[in-house]
Amino acid sequence: MARIAPLSGFPEWLPEGRAVESHILRTVAHVFELHGFVGIETRAVEPLEQLLSKGETSKEVYLLRRLQEDGEQSGSGDKTLGLHFDLTVPLARYVLENAGHLSFPFKRYQIQKVWRGERPQDGRFREFTQADIDVVGSEELPFHFEVELPLVIAEAFAALTGIGLPPVRISVNNRKVAQGFYEGLGLADVDGVLRTIDKLDKIGPDAVVAALQSDNGATEEQARACLALASITGTDASVAERVLALGVRTPRLEEGLDELVRLVETAAARAPGVVVADLRIARGLDYYTGSVYETTLVGHEQLGSICSGGRYDSLASDGSRTYPGVGLSIGVSRLVSRLLGAGLSAPSRAVPTAVLVAVSDEAHRGASDAVAAALRGRDIPTDVAPNAAKFGKQIRHADRRSIPFVWFPGADGAPDQVKDIRTGEQVDADPATWEPPVADRWPAVLPQPS
Amino acid sequence: MARIAPLSGFPEWLPEGRAVESHILRTVAHVFELHGFVGIETRAVEPLEQLLSKGETSKEVYLLRRLQEDGEQSGSGDKTLGLHFDLTVPLARYVLENAGHLSFPFKRYQIQKVWRGERPQDGRFREFTQADIDVVGSEELPFHFEVELPLVIAEAFAALTGIGLPPVRISVNNRKVAQGFYEGLGLADVDGVLRTIDKLDKIGPDAVVAALQSDNGATEEQARACLALASITGTDASVAERVLALGVRTPRLEEGLDELVRLVETAAARAPGVVVADLRIARGLDYYTGSVYETTLVGHEQLGSICSGGRYDSLASDGSRTYPGVGLSIGVSRLVSRLLGAGLSAPSRAVPTAVLVAVSDEAHRGASDAVAAALRGRDIPTDVAPNAAKFGKQIRHADRRSIPFVWFPGADGAPDQVKDIRTGEQVDADPATWEPPVADRWPAVLPQPS
Repeated sequence: MARIAPLSGFPEWLPEGRAVESHILRTVAHVFELHGFVGIETRAVEPLEQLLSKGETSKEVYLLRRLQEDGEQSGSGDKTLGLHFDLTVPLARYVLENAGHLSFPFKRYQIQKVWRGERPQDGRFREFTQADIDVVGSEELPFHFEVELPLVIAEAFAALTGIGLPPVRISVNNRKVAQGFYEGLGLADVDGVLRTIDKLDKIGPDAVVAALQSDNGATEEQARACLALASITGTDASVAERVLALGVRTPRLEEGLDELVRLVETAAARAPGVVVADLRIARGLDYYTGSVYETTLVGHEQLGSICSGGRYDSLASDGSRTYPGVGLSIGVSRLVSRLLGAGLSAPSRAVPTAVLVAVSDEAHRGASDAVAAALRGRDIPTDVAPNAAKFGKQIRHADRRSIPFVWFPGADGAPDQVKDIRTGEQVDADPATWEPPVADRWPAVLPQPS
Repeated sequence: MARIAPLSGFPEWLPEGRAVESHILRTVAHVFELHGFVGIETRAVEPLEQLLSKGETSKEVYLLRRLQEDGEQSGSGDKTLGLHFDLTVPLARYVLENAGHLSFPFKRYQIQKVWRGERPQDGRFREFTQADIDVVGSEELPFHFEVELPLVIAEAFAALTGIGLPPVRISVNNRKVAQGFYEGLGLADVDGVLRTIDKLDKIGPDAVVAALQSDNGATEEQARACLALASITGTDASVAERVLALGVRTPRLEEGLDELVRLVETAAARAPGVVVADLRIARGLDYYTGSVYETTLVGHEQLGSICSGGRYDSLASDGSRTYPGVGLSIGVSRLVSRLLGAGLSAPSRAVPTAVLVAVSDEAHRGASDAVAAALRGRDIPTDVAPNAAKFGKQIRHADRRSIPFVWFPGADGAPDQVKDIRTGEQVDADPATWEPPVADRWPAVLPQPS
């Protein structure tokens, strides 16, 4: 057997960690469904040409090849396939492939693994789970979805505070604001300026001012104005006033400010304190055209964004028809990694089991199996002791797994008994009617004392 | 944008199909948890040497390579990685890697995609979802788990008859029976005989008798005895009697028959009519050492096995310690493909949404959003009309998605009203108290008329 060691970049959880992840996935899926999003999955692979059509992330793709390609030409009879690196490119392809069978606006959620062909030395995740929501329109997509989607995300995260998730801050901006402002300033290289501003956190304001001049053709005054714009944050109409006070005014800028203010004001009413306009948010991807979003865990800002996205006027197009979209993507593995690594969340027990049925001797295993069947028939997760060891050892088997109850089938007409091994209390019980306390029936994921 | 076409071998479902698949996955996971199995996931990749350690399926592996391997030597600083082709090899590796953190016997379920690097021309699935359960012991694993596991699977399938799944037949055998019988006959090439017998369905009895003689060194009499053994089926102790009547008797054979009879007799009591001893079941994989299982859908036998597995005395070993296991694997994609292809199951609606809140005009969208928030707060899946079209158009929006209720916020102090668009009935309603009928709250997956 080959040497066994974890693979860098491919996170894997013990059962306790997976219980936390499963709880998160079930919770966010439930919130998404409450809002009318349908769940889909797409295949893990896309033709390479599809994966590269957006350009930017091409460096991080894993390509597939069959171990036994025999004498075939590499790729003959088949396109070169790569693993998807996000769920947006597959969604665009899915929408085009199935447009005739979908109803628009198409609201879908999608929870799947994605892969990035990072250098193994870089310590980045090379496999991780994303939970995405997007709304895709046919030809048009009203602005109000750009308000709704971050609020769905806010609700999903709010539903997780009970397991120890810190509060989140969703920082929002609008591409039209930056673009309109730069155009109004007379800067031609809008995308270049955006990319430079995006480095603000990494390289600091002085280096950004210098780069705007050296790389993006800005004068120092223009560069300082871009920096002033990027420093504005807020949760109400004063954001727009402070931007306009910088002295630039274009129709695109005013449209963007109007949208941005509608977003933060609606959010302030519906999810107070969560959504903040932050005009330094640029998001690297060129295809965003309206609202953009980034989400941080309060107190864990250095973790980076755990949920990002935005509006794109052309998610997909088949030549005759264009599909605009708006979406956000939760980085579930990053989130789980932090919850576990910082000891914020843990399940109440490592197994689903609420009751372990003891076995007095192997000849009477059938009696224990019958008790277990009766309890399971009433939706009580139940296991049977793996062997007829001494009862003390069977109780330790339960204790090691934090199974709260051990059941002893009655011998010779005596009634069955069930023992709460946390308190030691042992009472007569009938498998047809006994109920565990509600909180004990299924394991819960709980916040951990800090 | 590249030409869009499905990729052969990579099945993908429309939202309605995914709803059927999700229902199946939730149902089987629930049954597994009721029996105390913990859910885990493993990474999608394993080092190639790990994937090849079992030999047989090596031809079907997809290998990964990073698109930008730059000037690096291929594989330098990193092992060659391949996508897992089942969930058993990853389980063995996971158990060895985490043995110190797991409690044995370790009962786990695992629902994930697997990949087979099949030739695209062959029309086989190259990506599909499996749902596996296994019990892994440390050094020992009592026989009773070989009885328990197919009964868990029987219960999982029984829980799916309500969505239109036909009944299943779980055919079982025991490697010790065949091995003991062949040894007692004086045949040395036990594995070879097993592989030949495994072709019975494909090539027929005459060709099997011929092959046993030409390939496996059997006399015609020995070959006929092997065939007689393979023809035995049954659900009680008469199976053992008929085997022994063939005149061969070895300790291994008798041990195998004893186990096989215990399995079918216990199953006949706990899940009548599902589990049948069928002595032609061989299962190709060399590592099975006790019970083996195959499952067919009654009336759809030509679909092949939808759930297979068995006992292996050495699932994994780290040199000092051996981990025996027993497990079964449901081929979920094959099952879903048949349910959808044969029109057996469908969701009651294509979206989760029970209520669509109408929007009278965009200025009053906030009132509709507030109704939706109130309903969602009481766990009623609700959507808001995407635009303030004429009410007739908004009702058609709901109708196209089979959303049963449309909600009209009251104007100027009038009460809200909700309309059941199936009956046309429209009544006053308060979003703080109104309840949909239980059956309408969430979509159900239903059997379809044949």
